[in-house]
Amino acid sequence: MVLEDVLKSIKPVDSSLYEIAQKRLDNLTKPPGSLGRLEEFARRLVAIYKDTMPDIPRKVVFTFAGDHGVAEEGVSAYPSEVTRQMVFNFINGGAGINVLARHAGAEVVVVDIGVNHDFEDIQGLEKRKVLYGTKNMAKGPAMSREEALGCIEVGVELARQYAERGYRMFATGEMGIANTTPSSAIAAVITGRDVSEVTGRGTGIGDEALKRKVDVIKRAIEINSPDPSDPVDVLSKVGGAEIGGIAGLCLGAASLGLPVVVDGFISTAGALIAYALNPSVRDYMFAAHNSQEVGHRVMLEHMGLRPILDLDLRLGEGTGAALAMTIIDAGLKIYREMATFDEAGVTGEKQC
Amino acid sequence: MVLEDVLKSIKPVDSSLYEIAQKRLDNLTKPPGSLGRLEEFARRLVAIYKDTMPDIPRKVVFTFAGDHGVAEEGVSAYPSEVTRQMVFNFINGGAGINVLARHAGAEVVVVDIGVNHDFEDIQGLEKRKVLYGTKNMAKGPAMSREEALGCIEVGVELARQYAERGYRMFATGEMGIANTTPSSAIAAVITGRDVSEVTGRGTGIGDEALKRKVDVIKRAIEINSPDPSDPVDVLSKVGGAEIGGIAGLCLGAASLGLPVVVDGFISTAGALIAYALNPSVRDYMFAAHNSQEVGHRVMLEHMGLRPILDLDLRLGEGTGAALAMTIIDAGLKIYREMATFDEAGVTGEKQC
Repeated sequence: MVLEDVLKSIKPVDSSLYEIAQKRLDNLTKPPGSLGRLEEFARRLVAIYKDTMPDIPRKVVFTFAGDHGVAEEGVSAYPSEVTRQMVFNFINGGAGINVLARHAGAEVVVVDIGVNHDFEDIQGLEKRKVLYGTKNMAKGPAMSREEALGCIEVGVELARQYAERGYRMFATGEMGIANTTPSSAIAAVITGRDVSEVTGRGTGIGDEALKRKVDVIKRAIEINSPDPSDPVDVLSKVGGAEIGGIAGLCLGAASLGLPVVVDGFISTAGALIAYALNPSVRDYMFAAHNSQEVGHRVMLEHMGLRPILDLDLRLGEGTGAALAMTIIDAGLKIYREMATFDEAGVTGEKQC
Repeated sequence: MVLEDVLKSIKPVDSSLYEIAQKRLDNLTKPPGSLGRLEEFARRLVAIYKDTMPDIPRKVVFTFAGDHGVAEEGVSAYPSEVTRQMVFNFINGGAGINVLARHAGAEVVVVDIGVNHDFEDIQGLEKRKVLYGTKNMAKGPAMSREEALGCIEVGVELARQYAERGYRMFATGEMGIANTTPSSAIAAVITGRDVSEVTGRGTGIGDEALKRKVDVIKRAIEINSPDPSDPVDVLSKVGGAEIGGIAGLCLGAASLGLPVVVDGFISTAGALIAYALNPSVRDYMFAAHNSQEVGHRVMLEHMGLRPILDLDLRLGEGTGAALAMTIIDAGLKIYREMATFDEAGVTGEKQC
């Protein structure tokens, strides 16, 4: 893969398709616009798929897992071995994402892109390891530029391979102890906000650890001087393997003309890297939810994305994205299945 | 039915069950509280059902239909015959509520409680007519006190009958051209807000019609002097048949210890009547969504309910409630299906 080629292949959607979709929506037995964002989701899918009557898509959630050297700075409430333990929990079907993906009719694919553990071959696990955990970004670059490009490539390739297998809607998810720390760093560097404005409690650290986390991120940015105009540089210096994989998945989906539902805070940091590489990728993204993690909204606003759900979630894994897919599906079903005024014999003319 | 007996049978839920449910939630493989409102929904269902491991419930949406004499004042964008036409659309499965109820795994029951038309016996239609449309409330009471009580009774009875058939979660919905007008009147009388603060464009009227609508509501309140301390009086003077049915459904659900998902603006006016009769009914209510109709939030805040979804919906029928049921189900599935830390071999101790 040459990243430049992928980036060049991403085009804005044809907005004339929005109007064609809206025309059908306005003929359905309801006041115009009264199904609000469900109509928006239908319009967007018509434009993304370039299909005026899209099928309900086969769906897959990619949960990218990676470890983080910066965990040694005490920025997370949980020890690093939890990343590996949770990979087994995903594979065994007992995690939040498994429950919610089943609820959404989606499959879960766990991707080892950077866990500090050698996994056997296991059904449901994609072994795409680029590194055994990043290095501590508070002391130097999290990874090399080649490794960062390698992570993006994994995401692009997964999009291509699963599209070939018939999946037509992707969702992002992640697991990686300490990974809100690189996500906040990416948010700060790319949006230009102060670190303290985009750094929160992650899985639930206390006041002292939060102060330490902000200091660690500031130090990492100071030591590494990531270049905001070079998103791959940002990813390599203050990012993470799973964040790179998510960026690649977003780029891959957009290059294939397929939608990608972006989960919460960490996933949005990956989406932000993709957006900084080519803003047209936004046309293919759905922002799943408004995470409780401070800094999430900053990134969404930077990209001009409005979240679908607001349920105080802060788990990650792809849980918000799985739930959001059920709502996006609902929008498409409205578009496909509702009767028109003519079919139903309902008076559609407004009188005032 | 004697309303007094139903009201007396409604008890607040046992809040000690919230703690028992939260204990299980905190043992699941996720940071405590990280599934936000999904955890809230699970806790509430445990307390409502008095069952520490509730099954995924069988669900039914009741779409109450009624006509409104006040339509002759030109307060709606659509003519009254659309109420009857839409009843046939519901029965034929082509309306928004049919699509979204199927999506949610719920059945739709259409209730003729006040349509100005005699229907044949049709599968899926409950013929419970109390009146052939209300009278014009701008000129006198919308209905008699006996009729208002009769509408509430229909809702209570439906709750009882469908509970006997094994349905364990109810949702409210409605259809009735001009029915945002009585809903705004009820909101103004019961919350004490000014009519202009709780009156919106309904299905989409223009500026002039909106001004007329506010005037009509003010006149209706002036002429009828509904007594805010007597919710049945409010319902009879400035209400509607479907609004009374919804109030009854909420009371019936609460008296049976079953949850009721309240749809948008008009449904919430019905819920508000029920709440004014016995505030404990709130423990059994889920507010489905934040409608675009101004005044909805005022009523929700009056009852202390936080909506689940915010998707700019303003269709009614029960569409928001059907969608919200999918999210409530997700919360219960999390509670039922996720692995505990012990089961999964995941380190649950926090380190900072």
